[in-house]
Amino acid sequence: MRLLSLARDLRRRRARERNALFVAEGIRTVQELLASPLDVVGLLAAPKLEADPRAAPLLEEAQARGIAVLRVTEKEFRSAAETESPQGVLAIARVPERSFQPLAGRAKLRILVLDGVQDPGNVGTLVRTAAALWADATVALPGSVDLWNAKVVRSAMGALFHHHAFAAGAAELRDFLAAEGVALWGADQSGQEPRAGLPRLALAVGNEGSGLSAETRSLAERLVAIPIAPQVESLNVAVAAGILLYVLRP
Amino acid sequence: MRLLSLARDLRRRRARERNALFVAEGIRTVQELLASPLDVVGLLAAPKLEADPRAAPLLEEAQARGIAVLRVTEKEFRSAAETESPQGVLAIARVPERSFQPLAGRAKLRILVLDGVQDPGNVGTLVRTAAALWADATVALPGSVDLWNAKVVRSAMGALFHHHAFAAGAAELRDFLAAEGVALWGADQSGQEPRAGLPRLALAVGNEGSGLSAETRSLAERLVAIPIAPQVESLNVAVAAGILLYVLRP
Repeated sequence: MRLLSLARDLRRRRARERNALFVAEGIRTVQELLASPLDVVGLLAAPKLEADPRAAPLLEEAQARGIAVLRVTEKEFRSAAETESPQGVLAIARVPERSFQPLAGRAKLRILVLDGVQDPGNVGTLVRTAAALWADATVALPGSVDLWNAKVVRSAMGALFHHHAFAAGAAELRDFLAAEGVALWGADQSGQEPRAGLPRLALAVGNEGSGLSAETRSLAERLVAIPIAPQVESLNVAVAAGILLYVLRP
Repeated sequence: MRLLSLARDLRRRRARERNALFVAEGIRTVQELLASPLDVVGLLAAPKLEADPRAAPLLEEAQARGIAVLRVTEKEFRSAAETESPQGVLAIARVPERSFQPLAGRAKLRILVLDGVQDPGNVGTLVRTAAALWADATVALPGSVDLWNAKVVRSAMGALFHHHAFAAGAAELRDFLAAEGVALWGADQSGQEPRAGLPRLALAVGNEGSGLSAETRSLAERLVAIPIAPQVESLNVAVAAGILLYVLRP
């Protein structure tokens, strides 16, 4: 039963941080996880999973790779799952060790910075968008929802497993940008519409309600915005980041 | 109690269509609704609403405009609400009558077509994005989630109340495009990256899993796509639509 109580425990951010483990829920997400270089610790499978034709190959692959599969009841499964309709399968995996270090010295660089983005669906979509639009990394600053929250993992649609996304402190980000001479631009409705980016650039997007933090704002060399119709208060943060990453592509 | 049973009933699409009424949930959404030209029939308020400083002015405004306010228990409220944390307030309002007719004869035109988009959060974000990026209308074809679903209304952040969004049949869309000589472009990963649009253009986005329907595909003069990294299967549909509407702006 240890795998079940571990999965339950990992619903809390502190437990994920202490154990450097996270939970991926749903058939598609677990498939993406198994296809990634990440280290998978174990699977929980509920009876309902068997109804899906993708279940057997998935469980066989886990078996073949020596990944523990624990069969649990539907009730036990629900006690550990976080997302809606997790389809009777979840995986426990190791949070990959990622940092600024491999990003140093690149001639072209795009980093998406999440500055207090709090909705898990938005953060998952942001990671997926950054990965799709050729960003080298996504950095989640304190105040953002945990990247390894099950709902973020789910809505990132596998992008978290290969895209270089990680959490870092504001000072760490500042030091990296200064040491590498990389400019930070902040997305803010008061900013100017950008025409193109620089070869190396970090783009920060802020909280859904209050926008960029004062700290990030003061670090930003420029504020940029996509012009929008006056009746609408703002674009969704993932849509705004998508348009900006596209316009600013190196 | 009629307002309570009506709100409960309106959780079903058929009831919304039969009554031409819908439900808007949450303080912010109800505020946006009251500020819009839409006809508000009544409000349900639960005790928990009182804790919010925005509650009193909101209820006073409803009172002043002769809009019925029914006080209900938390349990009754929950029996009618659909979205997460609806904050103890919901409003029942009339679905506005909207059609292709006012879009005829315009020199510049942008229409976003939703072809089987099923996630309510995506559809709400699409409507918000279309409104923000100066589209004249959003048309939901059959197979898309109902525009007046409470979760769509919530995630559109008020955009449904002023943006010209409405449901229409595929034949109606085809007839309008033919009569007006407006081209339809379809978003599809096999398409080419567009550089600019035409003065008058409709852009169709498809289902989250299966993409455009065969019917919309055959109607499209061109397929367009935003190039993405090979490790990622697709962009989120609202992010893709946002980038395309931005690139294709008139």
